[in-house]
Amino acid sequence: MAPKVFYISDGTAITAEVFGHAVLSQFPVEFETFTIPFVETIQKAEKVKQQINDCFITTGERPILFHSIVKPEIRDIIYSSEGLDYDFLNTFVSPLEKQLGIEAQPVMNRTHGKSNLGYDSRIEAINYTMENDDGQTMKHMDKADIILLGVSRCGKTPSSLYLSMQFGIKAANYPFTEDDMDNLKLPEALKRNKSKLFGLTIDPNRLHEIRQGRMENSRYSSLRQCRIEVKEVEMLYKKERIPFVNTTFHSVEEISAKILDVTGLKRHMF
Amino acid sequence: MAPKVFYISDGTAITAEVFGHAVLSQFPVEFETFTIPFVETIQKAEKVKQQINDCFITTGERPILFHSIVKPEIRDIIYSSEGLDYDFLNTFVSPLEKQLGIEAQPVMNRTHGKSNLGYDSRIEAINYTMENDDGQTMKHMDKADIILLGVSRCGKTPSSLYLSMQFGIKAANYPFTEDDMDNLKLPEALKRNKSKLFGLTIDPNRLHEIRQGRMENSRYSSLRQCRIEVKEVEMLYKKERIPFVNTTFHSVEEISAKILDVTGLKRHMF
Repeated sequence: MAPKVFYISDGTAITAEVFGHAVLSQFPVEFETFTIPFVETIQKAEKVKQQINDCFITTGERPILFHSIVKPEIRDIIYSSEGLDYDFLNTFVSPLEKQLGIEAQPVMNRTHGKSNLGYDSRIEAINYTMENDDGQTMKHMDKADIILLGVSRCGKTPSSLYLSMQFGIKAANYPFTEDDMDNLKLPEALKRNKSKLFGLTIDPNRLHEIRQGRMENSRYSSLRQCRIEVKEVEMLYKKERIPFVNTTFHSVEEISAKILDVTGLKRHMF
Repeated sequence: MAPKVFYISDGTAITAEVFGHAVLSQFPVEFETFTIPFVETIQKAEKVKQQINDCFITTGERPILFHSIVKPEIRDIIYSSEGLDYDFLNTFVSPLEKQLGIEAQPVMNRTHGKSNLGYDSRIEAINYTMENDDGQTMKHMDKADIILLGVSRCGKTPSSLYLSMQFGIKAANYPFTEDDMDNLKLPEALKRNKSKLFGLTIDPNRLHEIRQGRMENSRYSSLRQCRIEVKEVEMLYKKERIPFVNTTFHSVEEISAKILDVTGLKRHMF
């Protein structure tokens, strides 16, 4: 039976999930997870405690708890349950207090709150990325922090969105299409923003597979066409000395982190 | 002087950032942060160690380290630096090994890797959300997991994108425009998906401010118009018993977590 895991928080529980997921992914087993956000009252905490205890009674195993609850009176209720507590937040707060010589001032919802510095600029980055997706317009390329290039379905849109959402980066993207292939070159608006260009490429077989899912048995999705496009685009990257990354085996997190690492763009946290 | 913080990883360093950010946000001070991803070789680890030690020499304070490095020989190099180690990952791995009776099998890049179950369905959710943003088409509403409603600029697009990116939810969104206001009602495609509808609302003064930034001194951005639209839309939500949330003081994380909490939609982790 899959071990049971509770992610509990008085806020969104996103931090508890991200952290717990990182720890649990070190283990070669599947877990069954339950996320309980917004545990802000004694009543709700008591209900969660009951749920944990019921789970223990049913399974005979103590469930694993990852929580990030700021209010002590609520945290204590969770502590008093039959779950096994991996209190990732508080474990590190008191050594940090010592090191910094500063007392922590826990505030609910601060981690993912809107009061974060630069929240508006993050929304601006998301809007920018939406409006400059897929080469819809070249008018605002000068305002981009980064411009992703690549053939259709190589991962430009999800990567651009992740860059804006997670890191507050204004990411435009520009597609090279079938019609460009005879004489592949950079449009003027990209040429004058050369230092912002970053290429994506992909294995032609994987590209073929993805495009088949969109438009089966078309010229667009044919392996031949995929091979031509990828080859031409990679040649352009090399000729123009545009850094590029192969997305075939990488997640949007990895692609985005790689782009920031190579370009030196500053990551913002929200 | 702001305490110095290093986020170090052999992967994307996103987990280290999210975790460190959660811990540090409990303190009422500003930190200066440096993120160093992809520390995969001894050489790179040695360079990072030098950077940490230089920072200590320059500032006279031991920098704070949050790292999630899987390979012991690389981790040991970081351990041997002058930084103070908050090894959030390994601190919890060995108690978990005991509880589970299973040995951890650390694998690099597993946390944010592409091998995660359901990665493709996440990309599908992102594509769905892009293609069904802002009521562009009503054709695919039946395929949505959730449909966000609201007036222009109340937060529909960033919230939809966050739901798809973070949680793998197919989130469509539909705007109510000025022209709808005389006789506000739900289009047919929304009526037949009533159980998926979720409303957003916003303080009219804040809406006015946001719209002024887009189209200054227009009818669209006037406080009068903002007030009318918000009032009409809230009345519709109440009449149709559509759950809704006020976005004025909430981040996309909070809005999204609230929507999932109220609707009971399952959160996926990537």
